[in-house]
Amino acid sequence: MENKKEIFAGIIIIGNEILSGRTQDTNTSTLSIWLNSLGIKVQEVRVIPDTEETIIKTVNELRKKYNYIFTTGGIGPTHDDITASSVSKAFNLTYGPHKEAMSILEKYYKPGEFNEGRKKMACMPTDANLILNPTSGAPGFNVENVFCLPGVPSILKSMIGGISHKLIGGNPILSQTINLRTVESEIAKSLSEVQTKNKDVDIGSYPFFRAGKLGVAIVLRSSDQNKIDQCNSEIQNFIKEKNIEVVEKE
Amino acid sequence: MENKKEIFAGIIIIGNEILSGRTQDTNTSTLSIWLNSLGIKVQEVRVIPDTEETIIKTVNELRKKYNYIFTTGGIGPTHDDITASSVSKAFNLTYGPHKEAMSILEKYYKPGEFNEGRKKMACMPTDANLILNPTSGAPGFNVENVFCLPGVPSILKSMIGGISHKLIGGNPILSQTINLRTVESEIAKSLSEVQTKNKDVDIGSYPFFRAGKLGVAIVLRSSDQNKIDQCNSEIQNFIKEKNIEVVEKE
Repeated sequence: MENKKEIFAGIIIIGNEILSGRTQDTNTSTLSIWLNSLGIKVQEVRVIPDTEETIIKTVNELRKKYNYIFTTGGIGPTHDDITASSVSKAFNLTYGPHKEAMSILEKYYKPGEFNEGRKKMACMPTDANLILNPTSGAPGFNVENVFCLPGVPSILKSMIGGISHKLIGGNPILSQTINLRTVESEIAKSLSEVQTKNKDVDIGSYPFFRAGKLGVAIVLRSSDQNKIDQCNSEIQNFIKEKNIEVVEKE
Repeated sequence: MENKKEIFAGIIIIGNEILSGRTQDTNTSTLSIWLNSLGIKVQEVRVIPDTEETIIKTVNELRKKYNYIFTTGGIGPTHDDITASSVSKAFNLTYGPHKEAMSILEKYYKPGEFNEGRKKMACMPTDANLILNPTSGAPGFNVENVFCLPGVPSILKSMIGGISHKLIGGNPILSQTINLRTVESEIAKSLSEVQTKNKDVDIGSYPFFRAGKLGVAIVLRSSDQNKIDQCNSEIQNFIKEKNIEVVEKE
């Protein structure tokens, strides 16, 4: 297997509605699962308010730290949508109507309906690469390693497929889950020994409670299936010794 | 009304399972809604991996930046639970068995069941204040302005009530939502004018789509009801002029 280096991403969730608790963010999970499948590991997520200074600072800090940055939210038509202008400032780029985006939206709306608010959705760094939106017309955009996506989960989901080819991933991150009918403290010591012997596998332990029964999901993550298999066999050994039941589902 | 200063909080969600997309974080929303009710505004959320260096750095950066910090996750019995030891290092405090926590857990478990893994859950900064856990025994802890809570949402929910009295909030943040049968671009200009005239009210605009119909929820947030009322009446004026229907629910 070719030994590629690890590729890391950061996610910036922009929006007061997430910080106030009004809206439950689901975009982190959507983006992480998609990026994992491309061999890109999400290393950090920040949720920040619709404040220009904070957006500029966070984008500039994280874009230097990780291979790719994805922002969600703040690219709509209203006054609280300031992601496009803030990202322009972060990169010292001209913010204004983007020719291709204007042309897309002109065609998208009926004659006379391409009003001021809608024209704002075509404003961004004027040289940005567009991220096409098959759901509702208004595109996202990409500058260098920063990809700006909308906050509405269904629209975001429809757009990410269009940028997969622009991203260079590492080896895909593989995972295996072992669900056990036990409690964490019963297996903590043995699991810790397995982790010590298998440093390249990320072993997570997550308690669950379903249908009145307690259990633990052990998740093995690595880009090397052989290493996962080795870990798995060591875990199978100690669960047999301890007479712990393996269950199908959490 | 007494004019208190604003009180800000940061949240640190600790856990590889959130970054991999395996688990959907819901603790941010739970904590934000609860903190809002106490007059504390969440200003930033960071999701970070189970890595000692990152936990120490993030706790030390944010605890100086905000009035209160809440961490979730990483206080269980397994090898990947390193929040308590990392927070001890962040504060340069001794990590070890906490007398009161040991005593609580000794009583919680049946004789002979207080094993090594469970004893780990009583290890933390030895002088920390405990956060009691009415659900599953193992307490969280508090050092200065940092409050460490578990990651399991139902357990976290059962514990936060016990720390409300330790927090000094500002004026409660009030909010009012106006749901309209329209699209954002139709109201963007008028709403922006209202925001310009009412700088102390945070006006958010959130498109929704339910039962096949599009709508926009306008959310007004401020600690001053009079300012919200003023904003609301200006919005009612422009929606009447535009003949936009107000709907009960999103």
